[in-house]
Amino acid sequence: MNSTFLGQHISLSLFGESHGPSIGITFDGLPAGIPLDLDGIRTQLEKRKPKGKISTARQEADEFEIVSGFFNGFTTGTPLCLLIRNTSQHSRDYEKTKFLMRPSHADYTAFEKYHGFQDYRGGGHFSGRVTAPVVAAGAICMQLLHEHGIRIASHIARCQDICDIPFSNTPDILETQMQHLNQSYFPVLSEEAARDMTALMENAHAKGDSVGGVLETIVTNLPAGIGNPFFDSIESILSHLLFSIPAVKGVEFGLGFGFADLYGSEANDPFRMEGGKVTTSTNHNAGINGGISNGMPIIFRTAVKPTPSIYQQQETIDYQSKQNASLTIQGRHDPAIIHRARVVVDSMAAIALLDLGWDVLGIAHRQSFRSSHERGR
Amino acid sequence: MNSTFLGQHISLSLFGESHGPSIGITFDGLPAGIPLDLDGIRTQLEKRKPKGKISTARQEADEFEIVSGFFNGFTTGTPLCLLIRNTSQHSRDYEKTKFLMRPSHADYTAFEKYHGFQDYRGGGHFSGRVTAPVVAAGAICMQLLHEHGIRIASHIARCQDICDIPFSNTPDILETQMQHLNQSYFPVLSEEAARDMTALMENAHAKGDSVGGVLETIVTNLPAGIGNPFFDSIESILSHLLFSIPAVKGVEFGLGFGFADLYGSEANDPFRMEGGKVTTSTNHNAGINGGISNGMPIIFRTAVKPTPSIYQQQETIDYQSKQNASLTIQGRHDPAIIHRARVVVDSMAAIALLDLGWDVLGIAHRQSFRSSHERGR
Amino acid sequence: MNSTFLGQHISLSLFGESHGPSIGITFDGLPAGIPLDLDGIRTQLEKRKPKGKISTARQEADEFEIVSGFFNGFTTGTPLCLLIRNTSQHSRDYEKTKFLMRPSHADYTAFEKYHGFQDYRGGGHFSGRVTAPVVAAGAICMQLLHEHGIRIASHIARCQDICDIPFSNTPDILETQMQHLNQSYFPVLSEEAARDMTALMENAHAKGDSVGGVLETIVTNLPAGIGNPFFDSIESILSHLLFSIPAVKGVEFGLGFGFADLYGSEANDPFRMEGGKVTTSTNHNAGINGGISNGMPIIFRTAVKPTPSIYQQQETIDYQSKQNASLTIQGRHDPAIIHRARVVVDSMAAIALLDLGWDVLGIAHRQSFRSSHERGR
Amino acid sequence: MNSTFLGQHISLSLFGESHGPSIGITFDGLPAGIPLDLDGIRTQLEKRKPKGKISTARQEADEFEIVSGFFNGFTTGTPLCLLIRNTSQHSRDYEKTKFLMRPSHADYTAFEKYHGFQDYRGGGHFSGRVTAPVVAAGAICMQLLHEHGIRIASHIARCQDICDIPFSNTPDILETQMQHLNQSYFPVLSEEAARDMTALMENAHAKGDSVGGVLETIVTNLPAGIGNPFFDSIESILSHLLFSIPAVKGVEFGLGFGFADLYGSEANDPFRMEGGKVTTSTNHNAGINGGISNGMPIIFRTAVKPTPSIYQQQETIDYQSKQNASLTIQGRHDPAIIHRARVVVDSMAAIALLDLGWDVLGIAHRQSFRSSHERGR
Repeated sequence: MNSTFLGQHISLSLFGESHGPSIGITFDGLPAGIPLDLDGIRTQLEKRKPKGKISTARQEADEFEIVSGFFNGFTTGTPLCLLIRNTSQHSRDYEKTKFLMRPSHADYTAFEKYHGFQDYRGGGHFSGRVTAPVVAAGAICMQLLHEHGIRIASHIARCQDICDIPFSNTPDILETQMQHLNQSYFPVLSEEAARDMTALMENAHAKGDSVGGVLETIVTNLPAGIGNPFFDSIESILSHLLFSIPAVKGVEFGLGFGFADLYGSEANDPFRMEGGKVTTSTNHNAGINGGISNGMPIIFRTAVKPTPSIYQQQETIDYQSKQNASLTIQGRHDPAIIHRARVVVDSMAAIALLDLGWDVLGIAHRQSFRSSHERGR
Repeated sequence: MNSTFLGQHISLSLFGESHGPSIGITFDGLPAGIPLDLDGIRTQLEKRKPKGKISTARQEADEFEIVSGFFNGFTTGTPLCLLIRNTSQHSRDYEKTKFLMRPSHADYTAFEKYHGFQDYRGGGHFSGRVTAPVVAAGAICMQLLHEHGIRIASHIARCQDICDIPFSNTPDILETQMQHLNQSYFPVLSEEAARDMTALMENAHAKGDSVGGVLETIVTNLPAGIGNPFFDSIESILSHLLFSIPAVKGVEFGLGFGFADLYGSEANDPFRMEGGKVTTSTNHNAGINGGISNGMPIIFRTAVKPTPSIYQQQETIDYQSKQNASLTIQGRHDPAIIHRARVVVDSMAAIALLDLGWDVLGIAHRQSFRSSHERGR
Repeated sequence: MNSTFLGQHISLSLFGESHGPSIGITFDGLPAGIPLDLDGIRTQLEKRKPKGKISTARQEADEFEIVSGFFNGFTTGTPLCLLIRNTSQHSRDYEKTKFLMRPSHADYTAFEKYHGFQDYRGGGHFSGRVTAPVVAAGAICMQLLHEHGIRIASHIARCQDICDIPFSNTPDILETQMQHLNQSYFPVLSEEAARDMTALMENAHAKGDSVGGVLETIVTNLPAGIGNPFFDSIESILSHLLFSIPAVKGVEFGLGFGFADLYGSEANDPFRMEGGKVTTSTNHNAGINGGISNGMPIIFRTAVKPTPSIYQQQETIDYQSKQNASLTIQGRHDPAIIHRARVVVDSMAAIALLDLGWDVLGIAHRQSFRSSHERGR
Repeated sequence: MNSTFLGQHISLSLFGESHGPSIGITFDGLPAGIPLDLDGIRTQLEKRKPKGKISTARQEADEFEIVSGFFNGFTTGTPLCLLIRNTSQHSRDYEKTKFLMRPSHADYTAFEKYHGFQDYRGGGHFSGRVTAPVVAAGAICMQLLHEHGIRIASHIARCQDICDIPFSNTPDILETQMQHLNQSYFPVLSEEAARDMTALMENAHAKGDSVGGVLETIVTNLPAGIGNPFFDSIESILSHLLFSIPAVKGVEFGLGFGFADLYGSEANDPFRMEGGKVTTSTNHNAGINGGISNGMPIIFRTAVKPTPSIYQQQETIDYQSKQNASLTIQGRHDPAIIHRARVVVDSMAAIALLDLGWDVLGIAHRQSFRSSHERGR
């Protein structure tokens, strides 16, 4: 299907266009009795919102309404549909340039696939805006993962030649780092790197240009035994969801492409007993062996390309006349989206890992069921 | 599911263990009337077979039997099941070390997931051997793609610091390169690089060690308009299948992680008319915009980690006693699998692109249907 | 999943509760370029609305809003989400009797499944009201089937001992009958039977009771070759969808249970050439052999049980106290829903047959694509 | 897909043709550690075998081989593939009549769907023979249901005007009845009815004719709370699987079509507390309210049409010449298959209910896991 994610236990149906009346998501498969943290959802949506000079000037309230599957503060167990009304469309920006294919956008491919029937305004269904409901769904998944102590955090590891400091190997420091990132709008560990990256982005903005970067994500406390061989490996499911984020062009786990530089004797992660617990002395494989978690942190990196919307004049074609043309994009755009993409990456990870961990975590048999059962007694 | 790939149009059910009686695959969804090229399947399986000093000494005939869905030389349209009997198992090699978890293998995670019931001999269902039926299925898909002129080829782009020459931008040279690769057992374009990589692998073998590398794959002649926004983007489906190959730890499309170094003005691919055809003057996005093909070649790179089976002594744990232990792996293993993984990557790409391109290519309405229909008249 | 129908080509995600803010459906997989007939959707929704003494007094406008996937009068090819706001809830009717399990309703089973978290007001997600979005989705499917001349019509074949006249075997008369039914609110062919059934229903209403009946549906002009052996037979897919309608407890095709009375020599449908066309001289198998259409009309009957909401005092239990209790249902209810269920049955049939016939009908390659393509030129 | 059943938790891929080398099934999703009762599987397969004058003379050993997913007596948790070799094909019987469409068989529809590429010998993939692997898969599911006390049994309730006695309402007698049926090859409760039905079948055989009938199935001890509203209701999933059995043309639950005769006040099943347990004083709804089990027995009836293979001369067409023709079927055929269909119905029910009950029954967390886990310690 176009925009339906069918997990093993949950299914998500994403809908909406950038300039249509509403965007939203239908979330089927949630167990009954989850006391949804609506403020938690709002907090996550805040991280996706454009802010400051490094983001588009389009301001959307992103207020959501849950129209089903939620009753008296708890999920009902039937499909939850969450809507976000669009309020700040400037659709006229797009009418004039309807046939001018914005380079590296989906304008041309959408024309080829949908034969001119697509909603071309603001990228339509291809807009990054449509990731907002994904963030809401991810926030719900994250809440369930938190019940099991599982934590997810991402930072901008690199933006051109500016690199952030790495995640710490010391659990306490790592936890502080993760908390810091999850409370930050601009997710960078080193203050200096954050300052330099922001300057780079503002500078790009001033030049009518844009930048990309690399996000690095860590997942801690995922129990061993989650995942599958072959088609439903952790890597398969995670990458499937990560590559469904517009602008993502690369995903690597652990050493990733760095594995090409090493011998097996260097790359292998020796198992060790530590305090009665199975661990590995290195974690080059990102906590995943044979598609299944081994109890070590899951670590992956996601390549985010520069926003294709830039203000400089670009060469392109006119789809209608099939002639070469030039285009200067109008409208409101982001000189960088990597900081906003962060929470989308975290959300996709939460969705993937909740679905993969469902049985091991006992999601269908949550503790709260029992207490809730007594509500009826 | 563990090992079922459910595409939009085809479904694959992979089964078997390294030391069980048979491995195989059930392929549902194929249209009737495909004149299967059994020699073509054998040719592809040959590329996956271990050969020479750079591969394991386990020699399997890999003779396949199609037990259903194939009649009088054509597919019937009902599920095709293909079996490969295992014949060269040395299962005793594994009995002694059953509880010694081979580092970076799936031994430990399989124990955690399957509670000791997994077939641990030779990696069981996690064995690279189980990719042989995938190659057979991929060969069938490739045959259908070839009917539309779509071609796939991969080379070892890098192995440690030895790099192959890149794919050419000149279509004629590129085609020659691709033919060369598809006729080679060791898929490298530069003879010198091939020699150096082979030497590196033989040297690793001599030291009881192993190496990995990066495969680069190109797909040509894929029409524009194939793929989907979000969850079923070309990148999502391709990466899902690529990451289901044991040993793959990274996937990037076009510039991939290199996008982090560029400005949008450098990264965007301007559209141009060329000989009445829409093209882009660069192809940093690997022929994919918004998850959908734009008619340019699809290019991706796959990181393959070094074979975890090495002959050097390694630190590990004993799963039964939950004690630290050391392990020297016996048995027959590959100092490198990247050259053998090549055809698995090509096969996964063929599976993914056939399923994605189904409607645009008109797979359900193949020309041969018409002629075949006349068979009944 | 609870409420997601995943067809081979389309997926439907149904959501909403009887007394929640909205009910709706997400429809993924529709091709681009369908000029939606909104009035046609309204006409179908009208048939589901309660009217007169034979229906509940709850009056819902059932005005729908399409919030995505629809642009400038055509489908975009991306997911279409259709919402219907609830406006006439009398939720207080349900508070007092929350723990009194209405016999043959889903109150008790919902408590067991959802542990008290379900929205119990008006049956919540189990309400027949949630079929309204199904009717809207079915109307869209029916529009596509109509493009191919395929027609669907149903009548109340029986209500207690009152039987309608059968569908005619003469094509012209049959077509008139089908048109008549599709223009009628109360779908019965014989005026006398219609009058008697209405009287029976009004009488039941007067006594605070309810009645059920048998719907008979005919589908004409479905080409041969649609359907599949085994799990995706026409009968499997149709019955799957028909039994998802609340109150349906039986489905039979052609002679159905009557096959038990006959010998094979009586039951078999001989093939005959008629005017150069393959036909069968009888149609006991309802146009389906081996799960696949043979070109004859598809005929099936659906058993609809009496509405469980009756006004007479009933024995039941109190879920909270786990004691026997008695219950007199308040609120607004239908003495019969079979006439309203008719359009839901037709809609489910349209959904099933569109998905099954997708490839044969060439839905992904509709004629309008070509003309539409020129819009962009 | 043609022949893949994708449940929520298990997936089955059925393959094979009547006269091909093998038939079989791939069963994905089984948990690890099930000690498979191979004799139990054989016992179930025996019930499907033709025996005596009331069945075809084709004798197949139906010896199965499990080629994957089974190790040291337990399931491994990875896909289980089970093969049954065909050994008694008389393929020449079919060559001469290849183009003569057997009435009410799938010959014609297969030609239309597969354009002449289908394996037409003995019905190919449409053959009832392909249900043998379903019985094997069902036997595995039944073993898991038995662990929870859930029992399934069916009898031939009616064959023309000969009716069996009904299931008893007294639990002890019912249990005896069910045991009796599950130990009988000819599943009828009344000895007299069994004798009369056998005589009817033998008589039909003597006349070269065939008979059908109605199977009635009961499922006891299914806990309350299993199933779903709408698309995955118990009725939807059960009927989907039941109608995938060749020859099934009707399915009804509880009163089924009999609901049309009653008022709601008669049809409703009042809830009652009995011995501290929730029960209903009648069970017209077959233990299902709103698609979800209420703890009462599930009861359904399945209409089985007479075997279409009869020895009398029949009218038909020649597909090649498109002329009317007459046909006298040769080969070995069943005058009745309802007694052999019984175990297929039971198997489909077991598959459906295992998948539906997965979470409530805790299938993914079976007790044996824990003990097994200790095997590794």
